[in-house]
Amino acid sequence: MELWFTEKQTENFGITAKVSRTLHTERTPYQRIDVLETVEYGRMLVLDGMVMCTDRDEFIYHEMIAHVPLFTHPDPKQVLVIGGGDGGTIREVVKHPRVERAVLAEIDERVIAVSKEYFPALSRGFADPRVEIEVGDGIAHVKANKDTYDVILVDSTEPIGPAEGLFAREFYEGIYEALRPGGVFVAQTESPLFNAALISRVWRDIASIYPVTRLYLAPVPTYPTGMWSFTLGSKGPDPLQAEGQDETAIETRYYTPEVHGASFALPRFVEELLAR
Amino acid sequence: MELWFTEKQTENFGITAKVSRTLHTERTPYQRIDVLETVEYGRMLVLDGMVMCTDRDEFIYHEMIAHVPLFTHPDPKQVLVIGGGDGGTIREVVKHPRVERAVLAEIDERVIAVSKEYFPALSRGFADPRVEIEVGDGIAHVKANKDTYDVILVDSTEPIGPAEGLFAREFYEGIYEALRPGGVFVAQTESPLFNAALISRVWRDIASIYPVTRLYLAPVPTYPTGMWSFTLGSKGPDPLQAEGQDETAIETRYYTPEVHGASFALPRFVEELLAR
Repeated sequence: MELWFTEKQTENFGITAKVSRTLHTERTPYQRIDVLETVEYGRMLVLDGMVMCTDRDEFIYHEMIAHVPLFTHPDPKQVLVIGGGDGGTIREVVKHPRVERAVLAEIDERVIAVSKEYFPALSRGFADPRVEIEVGDGIAHVKANKDTYDVILVDSTEPIGPAEGLFAREFYEGIYEALRPGGVFVAQTESPLFNAALISRVWRDIASIYPVTRLYLAPVPTYPTGMWSFTLGSKGPDPLQAEGQDETAIETRYYTPEVHGASFALPRFVEELLAR
Repeated sequence: MELWFTEKQTENFGITAKVSRTLHTERTPYQRIDVLETVEYGRMLVLDGMVMCTDRDEFIYHEMIAHVPLFTHPDPKQVLVIGGGDGGTIREVVKHPRVERAVLAEIDERVIAVSKEYFPALSRGFADPRVEIEVGDGIAHVKANKDTYDVILVDSTEPIGPAEGLFAREFYEGIYEALRPGGVFVAQTESPLFNAALISRVWRDIASIYPVTRLYLAPVPTYPTGMWSFTLGSKGPDPLQAEGQDETAIETRYYTPEVHGASFALPRFVEELLAR
């Protein structure tokens, strides 16, 4: 017998992966969680039928959501990750020696528990003494912690279900208030090919709040179209002028200082999305 | 009834696309050709079960295989495309006003005919008076035309079946002989995630022949992993110092002068493939 998992990334297109074992399935108050052992990509974390990360390609997404803003800020001491219960983003955050405190605000504690059990390479960052895990609503956490963080990373699921509010203008305003002077935030903002309207809208919203707004791209093979965007809002530091930190001190498989700069060179059709 | 086409990109992973109509199927002496109307990506050209291009995402691949070398060469007059029977690459080549002659050497005349019938947006470049179509073996064409071309583009299928010889060291030597002084060539060289060994080997082969060797990347959603590589060999001009041509004169949807440079900023794991 052959077992295949197919994610319909849209109504009309999907990816399909041969599964050697299903390791875990549960329904939490927030979503369905599945862990699959795939032959091609290793273990795969699936939330509500959507691939969140795989052993084989997760390094690209997690390095790019974390290191770009952390190397943009000249002295990132206080860092907040919203979502990201798998731990991959926190793992990258704590590679930065200047970070004194890294808070994870994840709404679904079961994601954290499942990652600790099945994804040791993702969740190992949780063991760092600077990490604080707060199980709860990221929106509420941001409201309750004004003028607190140097860097905030919005590592959300798709803009449907529990994460819908994480793509709203009010949330970006809340983040602005939660950032200290010179603070920087980044949100994952989906695929420019499949989610053009979302990207245009989010860009306009963030640009209306933050003095510096930039979009950058990275390939994520198991996400829709494999071409992923991140939108950065900053109270001051510009990621295109990031300098002064020693990037060579951090071990990476995707990120380099050159890749940092290059990821902001946008294809013409993406530039046009931002000019709408 | 729902019809879905699934390409197994490896034994254990694939993409799957809802098909509204199958427009064409045939077996030629070289391969099987299928044309599908997909809901998500528009028309899709499939050779031996592998997606070659789709209406929706073909612009990225074709712009990047053509404009990077054509803007690297200071005066590209004579251009050869090997493979590329769909016409997408030639369409981009003839956007360059300095090109006086663009030869297409495609082994399977049926690919050209099918593209003319079903992919007008791809094949419209064939109508340009500077284009010469030569149906035949690209390897033989290169051997028979020494010291002839300024730019050669190897727009091949996967390194199995009819295209196998297009990934061999002897072929890269033949291309070197077919290039005039200062000539530049590019080959599509698959995915760094799925074809690491191939990329390392091709890089070594090309670097042992050409004074300048560079690898660049572009996202191609419907190719395996969506992260695609191109390897460039040059007798002189360096794509990282390309200047002097007016890139703004050419209409593109992906390529920009900034994207040109950024595409050579390699992720650390790709740099490591080239150092092997």
